[in-house]
Amino acid sequence: MAKTAVVLVSGGLDSTTCLALAQAEGFEIVAVSFDYGQRHAVELERARAVAEHYAVRRHYVLPLGLFREIGGSALTADIDVPKSERVEDLGSGIPVTYVPARNLVFLSHAVGVAEMEEAEAVFIGVNALDYSGYPDCRPAFIQAFERVSQLATKAGVEGQGLSIRAPLMRWTKAEIIQKGLKLGAPYHLTHSCYDPAPGGVACGRCDSCLLRLKGFADAGASDPVPYVAVAAPTEG
Amino acid sequence: MAKTAVVLVSGGLDSTTCLALAQAEGFEIVAVSFDYGQRHAVELERARAVAEHYAVRRHYVLPLGLFREIGGSALTADIDVPKSERVEDLGSGIPVTYVPARNLVFLSHAVGVAEMEEAEAVFIGVNALDYSGYPDCRPAFIQAFERVSQLATKAGVEGQGLSIRAPLMRWTKAEIIQKGLKLGAPYHLTHSCYDPAPGGVACGRCDSCLLRLKGFADAGASDPVPYVAVAAPTEG
Repeated sequence: MAKTAVVLVSGGLDSTTCLALAQAEGFEIVAVSFDYGQRHAVELERARAVAEHYAVRRHYVLPLGLFREIGGSALTADIDVPKSERVEDLGSGIPVTYVPARNLVFLSHAVGVAEMEEAEAVFIGVNALDYSGYPDCRPAFIQAFERVSQLATKAGVEGQGLSIRAPLMRWTKAEIIQKGLKLGAPYHLTHSCYDPAPGGVACGRCDSCLLRLKGFADAGASDPVPYVAVAAPTEG
Repeated sequence: MAKTAVVLVSGGLDSTTCLALAQAEGFEIVAVSFDYGQRHAVELERARAVAEHYAVRRHYVLPLGLFREIGGSALTADIDVPKSERVEDLGSGIPVTYVPARNLVFLSHAVGVAEMEEAEAVFIGVNALDYSGYPDCRPAFIQAFERVSQLATKAGVEGQGLSIRAPLMRWTKAEIIQKGLKLGAPYHLTHSCYDPAPGGVACGRCDSCLLRLKGFADAGASDPVPYVAVAAPTEG
């Protein structure tokens, strides 16, 4: 039997690359996405399209009430998404798009799924370099989470621990894209924009669009998704 | 301003004692419960009654799809709850009532709520002594989770860490009950049974009922909730 990995799939560029990497390593894939009150339904559509593209063994779309209940982020509540014209203008510190404890909650769910699906690994597409300042995207967080997941589970108690893999952690966005393109990742299906126009078209000016566009420019590739407006790419 | 604690409230005896302890320490309380597809709606009713009894600042009842989706436990799926006549007959090892990664997922949500509510502590009523063999009820798990919660959050990054408190960890069920009775914990509102009769009446024969009844007997107190059938209490 093939070894199994649970991959957190958001429909974005990073998690799609993560899935491509896990599959290239020979894992059979169980995808996990969340219906957590995202402002934009397009994210879940793209997650489904990516999971389908890879013909995953199973795709869990898990309802999650927390973030809607606690509000407090521009990704789920009525807070304006910040816009900039150039990637250099991105704010520093923890941005308003931060969702409290998001990766902690996502990974905890993935551990529950991994235990049921007898998976050996959980893949998450976090990145510490182009990470927009979220605390739960740092290597120390992932290491500490791996430890806690081994203590929390039957698999951990009985000896076979789960590994928490964050292969994109130290790559630039350009490196992520280059790796993904080499593996044939379906970037045309992905979505990164925090504030899409009707129909899901990317704005080209939120933090996430700016980082993505700069990544494609630095990788010497062109982004296959359409944009409302594209800020001038700058050199990396 | 009073310091704030998030308390995980299930409607059971342990979490109610935990809430009593947190309030006795002077914390203002934010209660968190989960609607996760429990087989018995009575649990959430009792959680609401306990939160109301303590006039908590806010009670979050968070919808949670995971456990229903992954199945695999007698608490959420159609697996028979084991019954015994005496507490000595309880099985060893990890029981079928184990829900994969449950405390990990519950605590992760509590951390998200704590961050929004600016709480300093999260209280969870886990217990390593009378714990029925769940891996995520051990002290090492709680310690590792405290570490990961500090790394995962804005509060942790900015210096004020969150503490994860499991005050019942090393107490016997009798000690928990004695402490709770001293603090006036409303045990008449609580529910522990894994397999209640219609109307929510406790069966008196599942693991949870047996441990509870033995606890009251050892504490020299009588349990204020009704039972369908009560197994003969045994000496501790």
